Amino acid sequence: MTESGSGSKKKVVSLTEIAQEANVSRMTASRVLRGADGYSEATKDKVLAVAKRLGYVPNRIAAALGSDRATSLVAIALPTLSRELYSQILEGLEGKLTSMGYQPIVGVVGYDDEAEYHWLNSALAWRPCGLVIAGRVRSNANRTLLKSLSIPVMEIWNLSTQSKKPLRSDPMRVGLDHHAAGLQMGQYLSNRYRGQAGYIGVKVNDWALGVDRMQGFEEGYGQPLQSLLLNDSSSFYAGYYGTEQLLSANPSVRVLYYLDDNMAVGGLMFCQQKGIKIPGEIAVAGFGGLDVGSILPARLTTTSVRRLKVGKLAAENLIKRVNNEPVSLVDDVGFELLKGETA
Amino acid sequence: MTESGSGSKKKVVSLTEIAQEANVSRMTASRVLRGADGYSEATKDKVLAVAKRLGYVPNRIAAALGSDRATSLVAIALPTLSRELYSQILEGLEGKLTSMGYQPIVGVVGYDDEAEYHWLNSALAWRPCGLVIAGRVRSNANRTLLKSLSIPVMEIWNLSTQSKKPLRSDPMRVGLDHHAAGLQMGQYLSNRYRGQAGYIGVKVNDWALGVDRMQGFEEGYGQPLQSLLLNDSSSFYAGYYGTEQLLSANPSVRVLYYLDDNMAVGGLMFCQQKGIKIPGEIAVAGFGGLDVGSILPARLTTTSVRRLKVGKLAAENLIKRVNNEPVSLVDDVGFELLKGETA
Repeated sequence: MTESGSGSKKKVVSLTEIAQEANVSRMTASRVLRGADGYSEATKDKVLAVAKRLGYVPNRIAAALGSDRATSLVAIALPTLSRELYSQILEGLEGKLTSMGYQPIVGVVGYDDEAEYHWLNSALAWRPCGLVIAGRVRSNANRTLLKSLSIPVMEIWNLSTQSKKPLRSDPMRVGLDHHAAGLQMGQYLSNRYRGQAGYIGVKVNDWALGVDRMQGFEEGYGQPLQSLLLNDSSSFYAGYYGTEQLLSANPSVRVLYYLDDNMAVGGLMFCQQKGIKIPGEIAVAGFGGLDVGSILPARLTTTSVRRLKVGKLAAENLIKRVNNEPVSLVDDVGFELLKGETA
Repeated sequence: MTESGSGSKKKVVSLTEIAQEANVSRMTASRVLRGADGYSEATKDKVLAVAKRLGYVPNRIAAALGSDRATSLVAIALPTLSRELYSQILEGLEGKLTSMGYQPIVGVVGYDDEAEYHWLNSALAWRPCGLVIAGRVRSNANRTLLKSLSIPVMEIWNLSTQSKKPLRSDPMRVGLDHHAAGLQMGQYLSNRYRGQAGYIGVKVNDWALGVDRMQGFEEGYGQPLQSLLLNDSSSFYAGYYGTEQLLSANPSVRVLYYLDDNMAVGGLMFCQQKGIKIPGEIAVAGFGGLDVGSILPARLTTTSVRRLKVGKLAAENLIKRVNNEPVSLVDDVGFELLKGETA
């Protein structure tokens, strides 16, 4: 079914129509719809009912003109939505922002500086009152762009100070220390197992996603890691074939640590199919406390992270700053080692 | 670390500064940054380099004022982001819109009419040039609001005509016929198995998510279904305990169909732990062709769906309509039965 698009012939409902229909003055209708005062409860109910019935929509653009801070838009740049981790952080951000009367403009910028730069430029043209970005290593041009902004910037996810400098002199940050999470898991496993440890994760362009955790783990385990960084995104299947690759190159590996739980479950499935005993022959640990861990025959040893909480707290702190209220510059939501049956 | 939020003291970079720094007139700087013509390549490169170095951001709000259609914002309302299905559709939408120079404003509205109404009202106040919504049953107030809009509306995901009326007289839609997908799976399994079939899904408020597929399956299988609709959201664990519940109430069930692959995998894990042979004792089928299916010891029988494609095509068609170009009103991305080893 194809037709020549004719746009729409419907007219936007005007304030005048609302006023006529509700039998009040245009001024009164406007006051009610703006939430100002000076009218009775009965008038308010009547006007709002008419507005709802006719599908009236106010115009925010006129109100925002001429101000850099009057808008209720918040820009959010995330590297991906395909990972459960980020989609749940976004769900937390979106829910909290909406409940406070703000609307997110969302960009998925990958791990690419050019994409991030272009997205920021076009999103910032809408003069959002704040910006949320996922912490990662950035180019100088992008750091300059972010530093030049006149709006508050909230960096989420990674509070490690091992592998990168803070984004600006006073970054607001919410997340957890990934280096510390890896360190804790490495120490826990080094107390239970001896022998070669391996790490399976993914490369993103020329650096490793989760590199802070990997380095923390190596430090905590106290031995050099055999690490395999795939040119792929995280998935069950990447964990499966990554495990096959690492084990065939390093048959003596005794402990396996993964970028996240989904990859760890892929590894467990590989071991199960090859008849490798877990944790008798190989101990397996993940990261994230993702949903999939709950249905395994043996509970996965992992680090649980409060992802919705990261999103909610980031939204709350950013909006406090937007409104010039006192606010924590850094909020650590922490993490928890879950001692399962796989390591 | 807490401090009294002081907002920011940084000034937004002005056009005048760009012009001075690049040693061109303010008019020329403006022309380059607006993408107009009338300057040399060398001038263009110089101005863009300065703009990038100083972190210049144009102001779209002024351009949008006074027009209902001049903006490059697109509003997107989804019920949730926690399901892989929707986050991948959003990734497709976002990628395509951004590549065409549009920015999405994203709302997660659950399956609740009030939440949807409020979100639409606040998002539409930004005068987006188009709206994308996930198809579902709606209240009359929300249908009226959507019908009253002067902008194109794109409904995604469900093209079934069994359980609901089209949204408006000329809805644009991209998705697949979920009733037909369920029907196909029911017919396939009825040719291979005899005996009682069961369905495990979730309830959302007072109706069932995936009800079109469930009804299609029942029709295709040719026998009344034992259906269990949990008061929960879809997850591995919901599939696990739903299977336990349905099988203990109906020990004679021979075939199990699930809301999605994640729930089916939860069911497979339950059967594995109870020593139930798949498909010898119970045949299991899912929906979606999700990543998790790729690592199972036995390939899951399911229906694969092109989720990124739904998002991309929805974005393309919507923007064609925005630009008054000819466009398909309904685009069916189809589905494919994957004959695995679990049914």
